[in-house]
Amino acid sequence: MTDTSLGKQMHSLATMMFPICRSITGNGVRQTLNILKEEIPLVIYEVPSGTKVFDWEVPKEWNIREAYIKNSTGEKIVDFKNCNLHVLNYSTPINKKISLEELKKHLSSLPDHPDWIPYRTSYYKEDWGFCISHNQLQNLTEDTYDVCIDSTLTQGHLTYGECFIPGELSDEVLISAHVCHPSLPNDNLAGISVVTYLAKELLKSKPRYSYRFLFIPGTIGAITWLSINELHTHRIKHGLVASLLGDPGTFTYKRSRRGDTEIDTIVETVLKSRNPDNKIIEFFPYGYDERQFCSPGFNLAVGCLSRTPFGQYAEYHTSADNLEFIKAEILEDSYNTYLEIVRVLEANKKFLNTNPKCEPQLGKRGLYSLKGGDNDAKEFQLALLWVLNLSDGEHSLLDISKRANMKFESIRFAASKLEECDLLKEARKNWT
Amino acid sequence: MTDTSLGKQMHSLATMMFPICRSITGNGVRQTLNILKEEIPLVIYEVPSGTKVFDWEVPKEWNIREAYIKNSTGEKIVDFKNCNLHVLNYSTPINKKISLEELKKHLSSLPDHPDWIPYRTSYYKEDWGFCISHNQLQNLTEDTYDVCIDSTLTQGHLTYGECFIPGELSDEVLISAHVCHPSLPNDNLAGISVVTYLAKELLKSKPRYSYRFLFIPGTIGAITWLSINELHTHRIKHGLVASLLGDPGTFTYKRSRRGDTEIDTIVETVLKSRNPDNKIIEFFPYGYDERQFCSPGFNLAVGCLSRTPFGQYAEYHTSADNLEFIKAEILEDSYNTYLEIVRVLEANKKFLNTNPKCEPQLGKRGLYSLKGGDNDAKEFQLALLWVLNLSDGEHSLLDISKRANMKFESIRFAASKLEECDLLKEARKNWT
Amino acid sequence: MTDTSLGKQMHSLATMMFPICRSITGNGVRQTLNILKEEIPLVIYEVPSGTKVFDWEVPKEWNIREAYIKNSTGEKIVDFKNCNLHVLNYSTPINKKISLEELKKHLSSLPDHPDWIPYRTSYYKEDWGFCISHNQLQNLTEDTYDVCIDSTLTQGHLTYGECFIPGELSDEVLISAHVCHPSLPNDNLAGISVVTYLAKELLKSKPRYSYRFLFIPGTIGAITWLSINELHTHRIKHGLVASLLGDPGTFTYKRSRRGDTEIDTIVETVLKSRNPDNKIIEFFPYGYDERQFCSPGFNLAVGCLSRTPFGQYAEYHTSADNLEFIKAEILEDSYNTYLEIVRVLEANKKFLNTNPKCEPQLGKRGLYSLKGGDNDAKEFQLALLWVLNLSDGEHSLLDISKRANMKFESIRFAASKLEECDLLKEARKNWT
Repeated sequence: MTDTSLGKQMHSLATMMFPICRSITGNGVRQTLNILKEEIPLVIYEVPSGTKVFDWEVPKEWNIREAYIKNSTGEKIVDFKNCNLHVLNYSTPINKKISLEELKKHLSSLPDHPDWIPYRTSYYKEDWGFCISHNQLQNLTEDTYDVCIDSTLTQGHLTYGECFIPGELSDEVLISAHVCHPSLPNDNLAGISVVTYLAKELLKSKPRYSYRFLFIPGTIGAITWLSINELHTHRIKHGLVASLLGDPGTFTYKRSRRGDTEIDTIVETVLKSRNPDNKIIEFFPYGYDERQFCSPGFNLAVGCLSRTPFGQYAEYHTSADNLEFIKAEILEDSYNTYLEIVRVLEANKKFLNTNPKCEPQLGKRGLYSLKGGDNDAKEFQLALLWVLNLSDGEHSLLDISKRANMKFESIRFAASKLEECDLLKEARKNWT
Repeated sequence: MTDTSLGKQMHSLATMMFPICRSITGNGVRQTLNILKEEIPLVIYEVPSGTKVFDWEVPKEWNIREAYIKNSTGEKIVDFKNCNLHVLNYSTPINKKISLEELKKHLSSLPDHPDWIPYRTSYYKEDWGFCISHNQLQNLTEDTYDVCIDSTLTQGHLTYGECFIPGELSDEVLISAHVCHPSLPNDNLAGISVVTYLAKELLKSKPRYSYRFLFIPGTIGAITWLSINELHTHRIKHGLVASLLGDPGTFTYKRSRRGDTEIDTIVETVLKSRNPDNKIIEFFPYGYDERQFCSPGFNLAVGCLSRTPFGQYAEYHTSADNLEFIKAEILEDSYNTYLEIVRVLEANKKFLNTNPKCEPQLGKRGLYSLKGGDNDAKEFQLALLWVLNLSDGEHSLLDISKRANMKFESIRFAASKLEECDLLKEARKNWT
Repeated sequence: MTDTSLGKQMHSLATMMFPICRSITGNGVRQTLNILKEEIPLVIYEVPSGTKVFDWEVPKEWNIREAYIKNSTGEKIVDFKNCNLHVLNYSTPINKKISLEELKKHLSSLPDHPDWIPYRTSYYKEDWGFCISHNQLQNLTEDTYDVCIDSTLTQGHLTYGECFIPGELSDEVLISAHVCHPSLPNDNLAGISVVTYLAKELLKSKPRYSYRFLFIPGTIGAITWLSINELHTHRIKHGLVASLLGDPGTFTYKRSRRGDTEIDTIVETVLKSRNPDNKIIEFFPYGYDERQFCSPGFNLAVGCLSRTPFGQYAEYHTSADNLEFIKAEILEDSYNTYLEIVRVLEANKKFLNTNPKCEPQLGKRGLYSLKGGDNDAKEFQLALLWVLNLSDGEHSLLDISKRANMKFESIRFAASKLEECDLLKEARKNWT
């Protein structure tokens, strides 16, 4: 399997999920999770409508079979089958004849992008509507229109999926992707695909941390998950919200509310080393589910790693976020970036120098050039000395690499050689 | 009453106080405080000469009836009645005939500003002298001069005034102005007027903090007040020394010794928002009574807010600091600046989010747009989210406004709306 | 004795030590310490070969009588008597006839500097070799060479010297110089001379701190000293490693591992005030014996103060580091710099204001101008006010001078005047 084929596989997975009309509840989410279940072991949870989750409650379940607008000649001028963005997500059922004037009260369009169909929702206020291109809107003539939305909004469930990979430690890494958007590949089929393939990779061998991958509806899904798992969240030591990972922009990492946690430092280091144009921004209480994970009562070390941030590219929340908008090689770059972050996180241990008083004699262990008087301090030997000098239980390998201004990999390699000689031992806790 | 008339009223008050010959003790201070007592409820304290106040003692009381220099033809060439700066402040009595040569040993002038009369004092070394313009000094001819200073320096009292406004909290805000300078409008009739009108405004309704306004002689007055109120100073949580508030320069705020207290942050924020040219400087142990309030044994959160700092404008401590030098509109700007600081201080509470786990559902309370998918984060909604996210009892509203990079008023308004919905409660202490 | 002659004396001392072939053990170190013993009281320690010192052990003692290479005509083409760099330091004995090809395997030269002889060592791997100029190496012809190194490597001792000057406090200042290099004046006869003269100066009167001057072989000497004195190192509050003090470059100070200790701040202040081009660099775990003093198990407040750092000048570790390379006036400048650092360290006390509530009345003690109204704040009076304001037991005089942006000497003088008036008392501990 070449690297290129990995990107193509992720794109294929997104393509399989594309036609499904997802929402915060309903069969669209179930179908999506069933596709993912073919790739990774996924436990699917169903939480009944009306369940109290903190200040909220799980809403009624929404499902839709068809929807259209016909003109008086019986022609379907708008059809949900062509594009599921056409229906205001969570629309209540409707089936009646109305005038153009009345119809227009229920239409959304994008005057600045007259060919594109917008994406709109109305989860918490019962309403119905259609989204169409602005060109079509302007060409609508006086007529009597037959509008039909064959949807149901009834007692049911909120559905989410969870893939847990136990590691050596009970400390957990949380990675979540939202699964509530209909046919919008960048938002968030790209994120779902990258996270699924990341889980597949981690399943190949037992990691140090335990990993918990969440595929949840945005906002209400995160609130529901946190409510159900409230007593469990103390195990989450690091986390990332994965969204918007298929567009061609550079990465933007939004720090956790705490701002200076280990995941914040690692993501910053990895992003800056991969591309100096990648951006790091401070936390703000708007955006994806980091809003919930970073609410003051949880305050978890969870940031959000996207490519171009929401609302900052024209195609955001429109029909132009289509399967051509996301590219296989971009998905693969997103995957590799997430994987590098995980690799650094896995390796970023703190050690104790077992011989902390004066330097140990590296020469007798074959780790040090025995010919003195040489002006050149060798990179490897310097890395050994840095690791020994700072391994006091306070500094992680990443801390050491930053202090030494050396690559993380050089420091990690030096630490592994010292550990082999019993000159280092890990300062660790929280064994499973 | 228009805004303009407020400035004029303060200028009128300064004009009423202008002719009085004030010093660190004596009837000049009493007359001044009696004028202020017409404006605000003022308790006047009299502390006997000889009272021990820390390392100092209250000096003898100084009073003066008249003073002049006559030439041999009997002409009064210098007369205290024309300008009370003519007499070295705290001069001992003298009445004798002396030569020009001896007279000159007791004369001060300003060669760089030959038309102006300097202001000089000799509080702690008994001496006598006159201050005259340099032009007059240079035109004095050989003659026998009749010098008369009809002053008394006797056991008496040091006088100061205090206006206390009880608030909801026993925590106090201290605002002090020095009342020891003779006819020098900017130093400090402007400060006295601004502080008096600020007290008038606060008297209109019960504030959150208790406010203590001091009208005290510089240095010895502050030392005396601190000595008498030593056991009370722990209640002072914030303070400002008000001086030099009538000149046309921008503001300069000198931080408290602690440097990062709430009053420091508030004054900096208000000054920078009102005019980017306003300056913030670090504490130094010289200047006005912040020297005493910030001595290490007290170390109070008291800064000094002036317009142009002392010694940095030519007219400082000269007869050119006259009633034309201070302007009504400037006094009003100073007043508005102090009032804005007080308003922010009053509003700068810390709150607790009562629903700290996940966001509360703002939509069901009418605080949030219910139509999703809209790219624009509304300013008000973002302010609500910031307040909720950071109201953990650690962040004041000002902290939140800085972190959010939003106006204090926007944050304060959002907090008030959340408090109405019981989503916030104040984290407070020290009730009266 | 003029200042110039002090530099010349230090240069003469270096000249006396120059011919001796030093190494990490052996008679060269003993001879060197015996020369120093003529200047200062020095206790000489002998530690047996094989002694365990942390992860190391004291090596066999190395001594050498003569060494040469003869060509087949019997001509000595390389002779240790001419330059002791010719022999690979710690060479095992050899005496045999070999071909040019085999000889070359044991020769080192410097192609970039074809006239210079390099300095090479092989302490921890038994080997033999010669160092010659590259010109000579290239002119060697096919021949049979008679190589002789009349050295011994046997059970013996590691030798070091210590000069202890007891002060008022048991807190110690450690100053160390390495004594293991053969005829290399800058590395480290310059350092040895400067440290010796610094000790001579401090012996003239009882200092506040106790001073411990170490003349030790690099690395193994420091490790041996730390091993023997392990329980004693808590007394070391400040320290400097002295090396490379005779070359014409500016100073470079390498901070201690802790980085913000008092010695770090003092050296930075002194260096910056003496020459803005002097450099301050962060700690790194390579270099001189600060590597051992700053190992994590000790983590002492010890930095390294050199002129041009090791490896950054062409003459480093070559025969071009000769007696002309170091200059008397440079040695004197190095000495004066170290002395100024020690003077600041001695004077950098913390005081308590005995009258911390409000300012004391300086005027009645003759410390303050009694004529008020003067615009000029006098430097001395401002220094008095700063010292009083910040003498709360937390700020040293250097802290105060930095906060006040005034010269250390001005602050120190003001403190001395206040101490005379009993307005200050030292906040001290750890009396002997």
